[in-house]
Order: sequence, then C-alpha cells, then structure tokens
Amino acid sequence: MTKKHIYVYSPSSAVRDRSVIRRGVARLKALGHEVELDEAVFARHMRFAGDDETRLAAIHRAAASGADVALITRGGYGLTRILPGIRYKAVAKAIEKGTRFVGLSDFTAFQNAVLAKTGAVTWSGPALGEDFGVEGEPDDIMQDCFQDLVSGQGEGTGWQLPRSEETAKLVQVKDAVLWGGNLAIIAALAGTPWLPQVKGGILFLEDVHEHPYRIERMLTQLLYAGVLAGQKAIVLGHFTNYKPVPHDKGYRLQTVVDWLRAQVKCPVFTQLPFGHVPTKVCLPVGAPLHLAVEGRDAFLLWGHRH
Amino acid sequence: MTKKHIYVYSPSSAVRDRSVIRRGVARLKALGHEVELDEAVFARHMRFAGDDETRLAAIHRAAASGADVALITRGGYGLTRILPGIRYKAVAKAIEKGTRFVGLSDFTAFQNAVLAKTGAVTWSGPALGEDFGVEGEPDDIMQDCFQDLVSGQGEGTGWQLPRSEETAKLVQVKDAVLWGGNLAIIAALAGTPWLPQVKGGILFLEDVHEHPYRIERMLTQLLYAGVLAGQKAIVLGHFTNYKPVPHDKGYRLQTVVDWLRAQVKCPVFTQLPFGHVPTKVCLPVGAPLHLAVEGRDAFLLWGHRH
Repeated sequence: MTKKHIYVYSPSSAVRDRSVIRRGVARLKALGHEVELDEAVFARHMRFAGDDETRLAAIHRAAASGADVALITRGGYGLTRILPGIRYKAVAKAIEKGTRFVGLSDFTAFQNAVLAKTGAVTWSGPALGEDFGVEGEPDDIMQDCFQDLVSGQGEGTGWQLPRSEETAKLVQVKDAVLWGGNLAIIAALAGTPWLPQVKGGILFLEDVHEHPYRIERMLTQLLYAGVLAGQKAIVLGHFTNYKPVPHDKGYRLQTVVDWLRAQVKCPVFTQLPFGHVPTKVCLPVGAPLHLAVEGRDAFLLWGHRH
Repeated sequence: MTKKHIYVYSPSSAVRDRSVIRRGVARLKALGHEVELDEAVFARHMRFAGDDETRLAAIHRAAASGADVALITRGGYGLTRILPGIRYKAVAKAIEKGTRFVGLSDFTAFQNAVLAKTGAVTWSGPALGEDFGVEGEPDDIMQDCFQDLVSGQGEGTGWQLPRSEETAKLVQVKDAVLWGGNLAIIAALAGTPWLPQVKGGILFLEDVHEHPYRIERMLTQLLYAGVLAGQKAIVLGHFTNYKPVPHDKGYRLQTVVDWLRAQVKCPVFTQLPFGHVPTKVCLPVGAPLHLAVEGRDAFLLWGHRH
C-alpha cells in the first residue's frame, strides 16, 4: 500500500511515558507510514496534555495538517470540557478533504460532538500509545483493521456472537447510522447539545473501570432520555477491568445485558471487538451501514463510501 | 418533644448488616420515637433490597404508612431503575398529609423525581444505618437537625465558609427553590423527564468515591445542559473518599471548584455540612428558601412553612 501521512496529537490526558509513543511511532513507520508529531504531543498541564487552549490548538492543527489520518496518542479525560471551543466546520472540512480522525475512549466526546454539529464521519479505532505502543507485537486484527482504514480498503467488519445470541434466521438492519463509543462519555452528553440526535441508528458502546451497576445506571439514563428507543440495534463491545464486590451476590454484567434487552424492542448484540481491549476493529461513527446477523456471525458493513 | 412515628424502608441497595439497622432503631427509640420497620426492610435480590417490585411496594407502603417520617435504611444503588414505577401522586399526597421523606445518596433520584413530577418537598438528611446505626454516638449536629426536622421546629441551617470565600458584604438569594443532592444521580437524570426544571434555584451537590475529574465531567454535563446557568447559587457539600493518583500532578478538587466558578455567573459556596460525612444537616429539596452569606457565615433559611 502507499505511504500514508499520520498526524499524531494529544487532545485528552497527558502522555505519561514518552517511550510508549516512540514505540508506536516506530511501528507505524515500520508499516510504511510517514508520522508527524504535533508540537504539543507531550505537553502537560496537571493531568491534561496541555491546558484547554493547547489541546484545542492541537486538534485544530490536526485538522489543518492535511494528513490522511489524525490519530490520538491516548484517551483519559479532557475532551468534554473543551467541546464548545472546537471549530467544527474546520474539522468537517478536513474530513471532507480526506483526513480520517481516529481514536477511542475520551475521544468519543469529540466524535459524537462532530457528528451532532456537522454530520461528519470519524473513526472509532486504536490510540497510538495503547495499541501501537505496546511492548511486543501489536494485535494483528487491530493492525489489519487500521491498515484497511488508512488505505480506504475497509468495507466492514465481522465477529462471532456468543452462543446465546445465535439467531435461527437472518437479522438485517439496513441504512442505519452507527454512533456511540464509550458509554460514560455518551451518558455524559445526554441532555447536552453534543449528543447526536440519531434516529433509527445502531448504537455501539464499550467501557472500562465501570462496575455493572454504573453501566446499568448509564444505560438507564439513555433509556429515559429516549435514546435507546430510537435505535434499530444496540451493539455492545467489551466492558472491562471493573471490580466485582462480594455484595453483588450474583449481579453481574450479564444481568445488565439481560435487563437492557427487557427495556428495548431492538436487538442487542454483544462481543463486538471494540473497547479497552487489544483486539479492536475500526468503526465509522456517523456513517450509514448495514448490520447482518446469521447464526453466530455478525457483520457491520459500510462498503466503499467512506 | 412528642413521640413521632418513623417508618423505615429500603428502596435501594440491600442492608448488609442487620445489627447496624437494629442499632439505628434503638437510637431512634431512645430519642423517644416509635419506629416501624417495613416488611421488606431486610429483603435481598442480588445487590438490591429486593427486586424492583419489592422496592416499589416498600416505597408505596412508606407513603401509605401515615408516619411522620419515612426514613431509608441506606443508599447504594437501585432507585434510578424504578423511577417509572413510582406512584408519584400517592407520594405527594403522603407528603401533603405530613409524612417527611428523608434520605440521601441514591435517594436523590427519588427526591428529584418527586420534585419534577409533583413539586412536593422531600428532605435530604440522614440514612438510618450509616447515621444512626454507627458504633459509638451518632453525630450531634446530624441528630439535632433530624430532631428539628421530625418535630417541625427546623427553620434553617448555618455553616462556616472557608476563609477564601469570606464576603465583604452581605450576599442574599431570596425565594429560590433548593434542589440537588448527590451529583452522580443529578447528572444521571440529565436529559430525562426526572430532572426537575428549576429556574432561579439553589443547587446543592455532594458525592463520594468520585475522582475530581469525574466530578468535573458531571458538572460539565449540567453546565452544557443549561442547568447551572439557571441557578441563583450553587452550594457544594462534601466530596469524599476518592483516590488521587500520581498523574493528577496538582489537579484536585479545588481545581474543579475554581473551574466551576469560571463557568457560572452565580456564586459557588462550599463546605455545606452535607454528603457522605457524619455531620450532616437536613435540607428541604423542592422548598423555596433564602441563602444569606455574611463574612464567613452562610445560612439557608426556610422558616416554618414546611
């Protein structure tokens, strides 16, 4: 594939270990890409990657970079508080010109605000540090999906559902806008102008460090806000690294999934390879796509349009 | 004072230690009260104090009890998911007849839903277990405020502001509806029909186990939802038991308070004796009251009306 220009910047929490970023850069270069580091990529202001102005400037430099891909170093926290300062038209224009904004976790705030304000498509996918900067080999599937994305070859993604979700007949959801990402961020956007008003969409969600009762509380918020009833399907990625406690007494993540299914009419599928896990696919937030499920095979298909 | 009838029930998480409740009951009896335990006070369904129907029935029995006070055993988690099942008219009627619903934490969901649906006043105050069931003596101020509440003697509460909030001249906010409680719950109600639409109110907030960045993210949600701009004052109680991390690098609770003050035009006062701390006052959620601040002395005054 041809060499791509990847612009790396830090819109959220400060990079803690520069060697992780350097390792990630080396990996992208080894894949044949040209990597440009934003001037504030290692900036720090308390827990943030620079103060609000610094991080906003980094986002706007990424938008002005003309790069094929604008990739975050990491998530953490910092985007929700600067949402009003983002120049959305500039971001949408960069996207129109071919820059793909890629990231996850806290980046969900940026992605959904861009969707709400402009309708432009961004990509849920890896972060440079956590995904490419790992010691040892980066995850194969993550890397392949990223390469498909940067080359414009990606047409969709597939995964295997748990046995309990096996369908006897083909389930299809057509022309539905995919949106979502990190549940805590999506819930934190409820009631604000930054939550996309997607009707008949496919909502995908993941989270980390959130006990199932908190996951349920956040889903309850989306339920009461009318968000869930408006979707044609809900697809759950991975919810990881929470601590069960003895007084859960059988209350667990599956309890929440079962509860969710009882609250909504649309299908709820799980095990989407996305979240704070090594194996993650790339997903176009804001793009219309098709969901197809047959047996235990699930597919999200977006064709060549993006 | 005359003997009061206190009805104790469990609308949220299951009671873990019955001896805590028994100790609390003994203390209320020692204060001269008659204490009635709801039949499901010790019920358990996973982490909940009984399944949803059981907890709803407990709330409705409390409303039908004719008691002077309906007091929760504890908070935890469980009210947000049953908000649609509560018979708000029955609760408002009980309040009109003189039953004071008292509690905190997860109970914030009930209180603010009641306010949103009926305008009726409930009380942020102690929980039986954590406050009266402690080993050793319950907090003096908590107990005095509770006694004032149950006797109908309470006319307001006062506290001392930190030196940094000392005012040169008298600050007064008149006839403003007090509302709020636990920040995580208030944020979880944003965008839903259960968030009271209070304009020109006084919003009070507290929380536990939430890192300052999460507190900030929740306040950001209320900011973007237009909730903060609609208030005449914001009063912060205690935010306790979170774990600072090394990479906070100077980012702390005070950083969030400073940030909040820069976002809103109304005054923000702190150190309200309320939250997950032993010394807590009783506060009428939904009642119009006066806030007066002079020097370092702050007062919330509601007179004899409630």
